Amino acid sequence: MHAGEPHVVVVGAGFGGLYAALALKRAAVRVTVIDRRNHHLFLPLLYQVATAGLNPGDIAAPIRHVLRRQRNASVVMAEVTGVDPQRRVVQVEGSRSIGYDYLVLAAGSVTSYFGHDEWSAVSTPMLTLDDALEVRRRVLLSYERAEWEPDEERRRRLLTFVVVGGGPTGVELAGAVAEMARHALARDFRRIDPLSTRVILLEAGDRILSAMPPHLSDKAMGSLAALGVTVCTRAAAEKVDEEGVVAGGRRIPAATVLWAAGVSASPLARSLGAPLHRGRVLVQPGLNLAEHPEIYVIGDMAAVRRGEGLVPWLCPAAKQQGRHAASNIARAVAGRPPRPFRYRDHGTLATIGRSAAVADFGRVTLSGFAAWAAWLTIHIFFLIGFRNRFLVLFQWAWAYLTYERGARLVTGETRARRGADGAP
Amino acid sequence: MHAGEPHVVVVGAGFGGLYAALALKRAAVRVTVIDRRNHHLFLPLLYQVATAGLNPGDIAAPIRHVLRRQRNASVVMAEVTGVDPQRRVVQVEGSRSIGYDYLVLAAGSVTSYFGHDEWSAVSTPMLTLDDALEVRRRVLLSYERAEWEPDEERRRRLLTFVVVGGGPTGVELAGAVAEMARHALARDFRRIDPLSTRVILLEAGDRILSAMPPHLSDKAMGSLAALGVTVCTRAAAEKVDEEGVVAGGRRIPAATVLWAAGVSASPLARSLGAPLHRGRVLVQPGLNLAEHPEIYVIGDMAAVRRGEGLVPWLCPAAKQQGRHAASNIARAVAGRPPRPFRYRDHGTLATIGRSAAVADFGRVTLSGFAAWAAWLTIHIFFLIGFRNRFLVLFQWAWAYLTYERGARLVTGETRARRGADGAP
Repeated sequence: MHAGEPHVVVVGAGFGGLYAALALKRAAVRVTVIDRRNHHLFLPLLYQVATAGLNPGDIAAPIRHVLRRQRNASVVMAEVTGVDPQRRVVQVEGSRSIGYDYLVLAAGSVTSYFGHDEWSAVSTPMLTLDDALEVRRRVLLSYERAEWEPDEERRRRLLTFVVVGGGPTGVELAGAVAEMARHALARDFRRIDPLSTRVILLEAGDRILSAMPPHLSDKAMGSLAALGVTVCTRAAAEKVDEEGVVAGGRRIPAATVLWAAGVSASPLARSLGAPLHRGRVLVQPGLNLAEHPEIYVIGDMAAVRRGEGLVPWLCPAAKQQGRHAASNIARAVAGRPPRPFRYRDHGTLATIGRSAAVADFGRVTLSGFAAWAAWLTIHIFFLIGFRNRFLVLFQWAWAYLTYERGARLVTGETRARRGADGAP
Repeated sequence: MHAGEPHVVVVGAGFGGLYAALALKRAAVRVTVIDRRNHHLFLPLLYQVATAGLNPGDIAAPIRHVLRRQRNASVVMAEVTGVDPQRRVVQVEGSRSIGYDYLVLAAGSVTSYFGHDEWSAVSTPMLTLDDALEVRRRVLLSYERAEWEPDEERRRRLLTFVVVGGGPTGVELAGAVAEMARHALARDFRRIDPLSTRVILLEAGDRILSAMPPHLSDKAMGSLAALGVTVCTRAAAEKVDEEGVVAGGRRIPAATVLWAAGVSASPLARSLGAPLHRGRVLVQPGLNLAEHPEIYVIGDMAAVRRGEGLVPWLCPAAKQQGRHAASNIARAVAGRPPRPFRYRDHGTLATIGRSAAVADFGRVTLSGFAAWAAWLTIHIFFLIGFRNRFLVLFQWAWAYLTYERGARLVTGETRARRGADGAP
């Protein structure tokens, strides 16, 4: 590693950023990865942490650890507050700045409340490990309070869980909450019947999983119904407050509202001065900017054209873009022009409970157990590190055989939300 | 379960309370276990969570889950605020009260700062799962900040970890922090050398592990020295502040101070109006009170006479007392007098790093690898539930072979402490 080598700064160590850094392993560059967290998160399994099926350590790996053998990479845990494309520096909290020769912006998404930021105080999003632990805490505490609550109406409200958003996150979360109630918690409570739990999934559009073919939406509806989830379509959340949700003109009293409805690109996207499409940076076919070809924007922050439409904002797409940006940077260092990015669609999957899923592989679609088995195989295969793979497999096998959930712990203090709930 | 059966209320689901409840399984009583947390904690392994060797879920089990098949037991997650022995009720948060026929008080300890409560704001105790996660967060964040800190003196302060208290908790914690620095983190950082970490163990008395024979204290000193821990005896903490610690008149600049120096009995002990010994309730040989024979006090809350001295406040003692109190309650229900408690001393153990320990089995003492193997066997054997046993064994085997620590994640927000450290 020579100080004279071009310096590549990667902002964000999600699927895009981490795979960009890894793909630069043999390039003649110095790489600095900046993330405000110390871990890379395997986002597709986050809902399993939220519903106590997995431990946080099973789906996350320290970034430094992943990159420990890559001698040309170093890691900085800090928050990036802005980018100055003219001076070629990123600004970091504490008024520091880090210069770059090439920049890979992969800061991902933030939760979006569609202009209703006040809803963040009364619902829980699902984007980070801390979010997932907060969901777990809230769901389990609701049961504990319900067990102890003499008033029928209040108990009913405590046992009503509303999931807003019928995309893959919302579908998986609703299925997992319903299953946790039906199986894992069923024997643990004396006074309340966990089967009286109501899980309501609200979707603003005509059908859930709208990115998939309609017959898979129907299959998913059927699987959710079998788990006892009530699905309401054409039911946009009009109001979220301490009493619950108003959707489709109807009030649903609920102590727990889980927000899986929307994300928007990191605000860093706006700091570039580049053209945007719905808050995402419109990039060139090579994933970089026309005005600043040394800046690459990938993953959830980027709007990448693909035929008439755009590349979807999925983990595999971010990963492919990370590798592609790295390859184009290596080409640029060697004085060669960038190559256009081509998205390889390997299909999309969503799982519903312990043995059902829907899978869309383009010409082939799967549902039921076959889709679930495909989902399990693919996800374990892609988990980073052997150790996690083995542990996750074991915990799943165990949970599958026994209906138990090993990680059912309430830790930490509940974030200051929903004051109306009172103690504890 | 009949409402007419005597009602036994157990306050606290640590080793004392949980084993009392379990031992009442076949008694003709109703049992209610009240705890402010939803989980039983395997306290002897807490330091492994603090130093990222284990996940929280590996050393804790939901109380309801442990008691799920015991039909005469129910669980309430709530904080007990007082006891009224005259009316035979316990007061619970939210102005509720729960009546009892028999009471088992097993609320354990709280961290004690020996009258310096202001030190709680600048040091981290080690008594709960949240404490352990806070220790992990603080230690790992200190490394992250040091990697990024240009000033030599500040970097040195960030990499100095002071453990106050040379009992088993302090010794195990100091050894584990030193080992984490030496092995697990060694390859992960680029700019700092984790070997430059200083771990300082402060003990007010003449020697560490003072409850063990002197030659084992010497062995433990040797094992700690081999791991690079500096042990200072006759060094009571005189001051703890944002800059570090003053001990033996010397100031030690340190960003992280871990408090393993002292605990005192739960304040509930004082609410009984019974005679106390250093804040602990002096009980009859049958573990109950002379004035209120229906009240049993066990574990860390109790002072139980044994010859000239007292029964030590250790997990195995609490467990034995829990079972004994249950047996005496069953006898009382049957109209029979209580039997006196006899402590069976199975020895004490402390582990130092990954292959050394000291063990005191009375006539037999062990040190080094033999003691460590004994410690491992005993602790895995006593962990609640097969699943945890298997997972913990696997994680240890893995960590032993690879020097890795799987749970090295920073989650949650750091408690509002040590403002001087600044962001993040």
